[in-house]
Amino acid sequence: MIYLDNAATTAPLQEALQRALPYAEEVYYNPSARYHGGVVAARLIAEARRYLTQTVADAALFDAVFTSCGTEADNQAVFSAGRRGNVVATAGEHAAVWAACNELKNRGTEVRFAPLRADGSVDEAALLSLVDERTALVSVVHVNNETGAINPVAALARRVKEKNPRAVFHSDGVQAYGKIPVRLTRDIDLYSVSAHKIGGLKGTGALFRRKGYTALQPYLFGGGQENGLRSGTENVFGIACFYYAAQSRSARINEDAARAEACRERLWSLLDPVRFVRLSPRTGTPYILTVSAPGKRGEVLQRRLWDAGVAVGTGSACSSKKPHSRVIEACGYEKEVLDGVLRVSFSPSTTEEEVVAAAARLNEAAAAE
Amino acid sequence: MIYLDNAATTAPLQEALQRALPYAEEVYYNPSARYHGGVVAARLIAEARRYLTQTVADAALFDAVFTSCGTEADNQAVFSAGRRGNVVATAGEHAAVWAACNELKNRGTEVRFAPLRADGSVDEAALLSLVDERTALVSVVHVNNETGAINPVAALARRVKEKNPRAVFHSDGVQAYGKIPVRLTRDIDLYSVSAHKIGGLKGTGALFRRKGYTALQPYLFGGGQENGLRSGTENVFGIACFYYAAQSRSARINEDAARAEACRERLWSLLDPVRFVRLSPRTGTPYILTVSAPGKRGEVLQRRLWDAGVAVGTGSACSSKKPHSRVIEACGYEKEVLDGVLRVSFSPSTTEEEVVAAAARLNEAAAAE
Repeated sequence: MIYLDNAATTAPLQEALQRALPYAEEVYYNPSARYHGGVVAARLIAEARRYLTQTVADAALFDAVFTSCGTEADNQAVFSAGRRGNVVATAGEHAAVWAACNELKNRGTEVRFAPLRADGSVDEAALLSLVDERTALVSVVHVNNETGAINPVAALARRVKEKNPRAVFHSDGVQAYGKIPVRLTRDIDLYSVSAHKIGGLKGTGALFRRKGYTALQPYLFGGGQENGLRSGTENVFGIACFYYAAQSRSARINEDAARAEACRERLWSLLDPVRFVRLSPRTGTPYILTVSAPGKRGEVLQRRLWDAGVAVGTGSACSSKKPHSRVIEACGYEKEVLDGVLRVSFSPSTTEEEVVAAAARLNEAAAAE
Repeated sequence: MIYLDNAATTAPLQEALQRALPYAEEVYYNPSARYHGGVVAARLIAEARRYLTQTVADAALFDAVFTSCGTEADNQAVFSAGRRGNVVATAGEHAAVWAACNELKNRGTEVRFAPLRADGSVDEAALLSLVDERTALVSVVHVNNETGAINPVAALARRVKEKNPRAVFHSDGVQAYGKIPVRLTRDIDLYSVSAHKIGGLKGTGALFRRKGYTALQPYLFGGGQENGLRSGTENVFGIACFYYAAQSRSARINEDAARAEACRERLWSLLDPVRFVRLSPRTGTPYILTVSAPGKRGEVLQRRLWDAGVAVGTGSACSSKKPHSRVIEACGYEKEVLDGVLRVSFSPSTTEEEVVAAAARLNEAAAAE
């Protein structure tokens, strides 16, 4: 199987799994236990927290709350910061921010979604025009998970704060973290990431928080773990996997990105230009190439490709009930293009041979019938 | 190490880990993906859901929502059902229900806590007297995690419904599930469980729901996984571990319980009757023996015991900031007893030799200084 749906989820890194396994099998202690075994488990969590934090920010300025997934991190950010005034997000948000914002709307908060450009990035001027003195929260996805477009979150956060210094700025960094260099600035208050997109396990995420942003509320209430910000017995094994996967990925983030970009462009160069159009910008994440075969059905191509030994995505795997992707639709494409969307997403272990073989299968699939 | 803090967390079952590992290493696909690999992952989740449900209830009447932990399941139950009117819970609730109820209180809902009897079970008449026609939710912990007392949740739910058929009845079954037989009746709407107390991994829990209770709200919003009731990419590996651990535990639940009870009574019979008092009732879960060495400090004994090769708990490991356990305090004990609380908790693999050795260490620790 040539697995090119790594933006949906990617295979856990064997080295991370193996290094983490002692935290399932031996140091299975409850990190809240005050005896030595518990202390060892708690120490691993503290070490992972420090490590992960310094991969994205000055550790003097930021810390991290471990959550059960990117969705939980997004929900904590949105529901904590979006309780009053209005909330500004983008039409390109991941479902976890999008649906949380819509729930806020149901509860009476005004939510404003900024429109997208054709490549999936947010229209910056439009976004800023939605921010006013009553804006409590601005949430902008860092890397659009459907097109791969990168939003300049640091610059946007800067301009949001110039307009309203009290607005909280959050970004969903699930498709950015461990893939493109991330550096959180003082203008960014909250940043969500997920383990299973970078070779950790499903069931672990984190919410980075600027330490100066002390108003963050817990979303799960209970025993007061994670400094009171996320109750529930800590998923020590999952956190260990996340930590070790992040170490592996961070060590070679630039080389991996360069190789992924070569894969992306090679694939695109091999696709039949009559049958495919490209939706992903060249300036987007190197790990995602979203294309469309206008007039075809993405799901049909996807199944045909699976049968031919190639796994690719269609719209976001996270919410596959609607006929078209809400996000690609917001990019302004017509029905023919929306129908035929395929998302091809790479991992650092994707090889050139796989890309060449996948291109042939994609061309065949699109040519069939 | 003689590990007798299994109520805080227990070692993952090797057989469950090994059986589940292919769902981390090979079937790592996103269960929302519509190609075959995703379908295989989704099928495992469906199979686990069916299996777990029928271990506690008639599967025609109940289903299950997978969550990231018992705390999340409790929070979902409390925040979903407790939005209006008043909420009735007990002074013996686990922190996850207790703190969620207190958060409801902060948001303006009236919350009423029923008092406990000396053994940690709820005063049933007092509980029922708190239920009225405006009660939206009644939450009663099944097995008190600090004393092991068992609340008769089916009978209580029956009487609650007689008084107010519209009240939602929830029970935290984290210390009951897989340890004592659980049978959910039509009067119980929601029931929370956790994987890592029965040999699964931390990071997985479930909320059983009576199918007729259709008003359950999601607590995490996003891609609409778990039939819209819990968004976030499913923790397939964690769910697989939970499933296989539950299979192992359910197959021999009665034999294991009988052996645990023998351990509990053997340990108690060997403890110095001058130095220890027993807080756990004989009718409680066989897996917990909570004692106190009045005049001693539980944490000091706990550390001394760790150094002697025995791990035990003090108050609940889940919230260890306060000097005394809120729950044991609610049982009506005085400071001397509260200070000296130790919780000894067994697993099905606890041996008689371990119990005999632990008793000697406990007696020595309590005699020292």
